[in-house]
Amino acid sequence: MRVGIIGAGSIGLLFAAYFSRIVDVTVYTRTPEQATEIIKYGIVLKKNGEQTISNTKALPINEWKGIEDLTIISVKQYQLRPIIEKINQLPILPNNLLFLQNGMGHLKQLETIPNTNIFVGAVEHGALKENSYTVSHNGEAVTKVAVFKGNPTFLFDCISFAPLEFPLVFKEDYFTMLQSKLVVNAVINPLTAILEVENGKLIKNEYYFQVLKNLYSEVSSILNLDNTEEQLQQIITICNNTSANRSSMLKDIEAHRMTEVDAILGYILEVAEHKGMKSPQVANLYYLIKGKEMIKEEYA
Amino acid sequence: MRVGIIGAGSIGLLFAAYFSRIVDVTVYTRTPEQATEIIKYGIVLKKNGEQTISNTKALPINEWKGIEDLTIISVKQYQLRPIIEKINQLPILPNNLLFLQNGMGHLKQLETIPNTNIFVGAVEHGALKENSYTVSHNGEAVTKVAVFKGNPTFLFDCISFAPLEFPLVFKEDYFTMLQSKLVVNAVINPLTAILEVENGKLIKNEYYFQVLKNLYSEVSSILNLDNTEEQLQQIITICNNTSANRSSMLKDIEAHRMTEVDAILGYILEVAEHKGMKSPQVANLYYLIKGKEMIKEEYA
Repeated sequence: MRVGIIGAGSIGLLFAAYFSRIVDVTVYTRTPEQATEIIKYGIVLKKNGEQTISNTKALPINEWKGIEDLTIISVKQYQLRPIIEKINQLPILPNNLLFLQNGMGHLKQLETIPNTNIFVGAVEHGALKENSYTVSHNGEAVTKVAVFKGNPTFLFDCISFAPLEFPLVFKEDYFTMLQSKLVVNAVINPLTAILEVENGKLIKNEYYFQVLKNLYSEVSSILNLDNTEEQLQQIITICNNTSANRSSMLKDIEAHRMTEVDAILGYILEVAEHKGMKSPQVANLYYLIKGKEMIKEEYA
Repeated sequence: MRVGIIGAGSIGLLFAAYFSRIVDVTVYTRTPEQATEIIKYGIVLKKNGEQTISNTKALPINEWKGIEDLTIISVKQYQLRPIIEKINQLPILPNNLLFLQNGMGHLKQLETIPNTNIFVGAVEHGALKENSYTVSHNGEAVTKVAVFKGNPTFLFDCISFAPLEFPLVFKEDYFTMLQSKLVVNAVINPLTAILEVENGKLIKNEYYFQVLKNLYSEVSSILNLDNTEEQLQQIITICNNTSANRSSMLKDIEAHRMTEVDAILGYILEVAEHKGMKSPQVANLYYLIKGKEMIKEEYA
C-alpha cells in the first residue's frame, strides 16, 4: 500500500515516521529544501530518549498527483484551501483522503470534493518538530478517525494495518469527535496563550480555573453540548496529564507564528452568530489572540 | 496651615513634595524606617530632568493624632480599613479629611466617619516612586476634588492655596468624578496588565482596541453611564497621551505587588450582582488578574 502525506510539520513527520514502518510513504513538503533534507537524513523520530530513523520518499507538494491509495493531509486548517483546490483540479481524483486539521470550519470545504472517500481524524498525540526532518513524540496517545463522506471499508483496513504503537481508533460520529477536540482546544489553547502559562496552571491556579469554567460554559452553550460535565472533566484531565506542556497556540505565539485561532475560536464565533447567541468571552479571547499575533508579527 | 499625609507611596510623596512648598507638611509612613529616611534625605522630586528636595516632617503612622487642619489619605484602597478604624477611635476627630483612593468600594467605609468634613479626590498625575523618599512626576495633570460629606468651605480654601504647578480642581459631584476615573481604570488597567503592554498598544493594535470597546460597553452598561461616547473618547485620549506608559496595575503585577483589582473590577462586579446583570468580560478579567497576582506571589 502507498500512503502520501501532505504537510511535514510535527504531525506530518510523526505519521510519516510510524507509517513508513509498514507501508510505502511519500511525504509532500511545502519547500523543495525540506524534501531534500528528508531524503538525505530520513525522518528522525525521538521518543523516550531513543531515536529511530525512517527512510521515506519526499517530494515538494507541487509534485503530488494523488496516486497513493491513501493521502493524509496534515497541514494547518489555514493552509488547506490551495490543497483542496489542487485536489479538485487533479485529472483523476485520489481514492481516499484523511484530513487531520483542528477545528471544524474546514468541513464546508471538504464537501466540495466529489466522488472520494473522505475521512477525518483527531490527533491526540503530543509532538514537537525539532527541525525539518526531526520530530519528538513527547505525548503518546491515539488518533481518532471517522468517515466524513463515502465508504468506510478502506478506513477499517487502515485501522487494522496501522502500527500497534501508533493506533487509529474508529469513531462512529465525525461531528462529535471533532467537536470534542474543538472544545478542548477552545478552552486550553487561548487561555494558556494569553496567560503564557503551561496547561497545568489553568487548573492549579484557582482563579484561572474559574475563568476556564466560565469560558467552557459559554462554549458549551454555544455548541449546545449535551454531555457538558463529562467534557469539562475531560478538559481537566487533559490539563492534568499535560501539566508541564505548553499548548500549540502558546508555542505559535512564542515562535511568532500564525495560530489556529480562526479554526478554533473563529469557528465558535461563527456558530454563535449563526444562532444569534452572544459570545462575549469567546469574542474577547479571539481578539486578544489576534492582537498577540499582530504584535508578534512586528518582531517576525 | 498644617497638612498631614498618610501613606508615602508615589502619590503621598508627590503631594508632600508640592504641598510642603506652601504649608507645614507631616508625612505618616507605614514603616519607621521610611520616616527616618524622609527626615534624613528630604523628599526628592524629579521632574523634566530636574530634581528638587523638600524638607518635611515624617513620622510612623501610629503617631498620627489627626491634629492637622487637613489630612490627606493616600494609601491604596485595600490598606484603608485600619486607617478608618483609627480615625473612628481618635479622642478628637480630625477636621478635614481628603481621600485619594481609586475605585468606589471604599465610599461605604467613609460613611462610618461622623462629624468631619470628608472630601474625595481623583488624582490624574502620573508618578513613579523610585525609592522610599524619591518620586518622579512623569505625568503632569490635575487632582480633581469634591465634597463627599460636610461643609465645602475648607475645600475651597485648599483649592485657592494649592500650588499653581499642582492644582486642585473642584467638581460638584463626587460620584460622577470617581466613577469617571473608575471607568478609565477598569478598562486600561486590567487589559494592559494581562497583555503586558503599554497603554498606547490598546488603541494602536486594532484587535486589542476591539476588546477595549467590548469591555467598555459591558462596564458602561453595568454602571448605567449616560455619556458613553464621551467617556470612550476620554479613554482613547488617555491611551494616546500616556502611550508609552505602563499602567499602575501592570507595574504592580511586574513588581509582584497586590493590585487594585478589587477596588476597580471587584466594585463593578458588585454593582452588576446587585443589579442582577451579567458581567462575563469583567468577571473573567477580574479572575485573570487575581490569578496573575497568585502566580506573582509564588516568586515574591
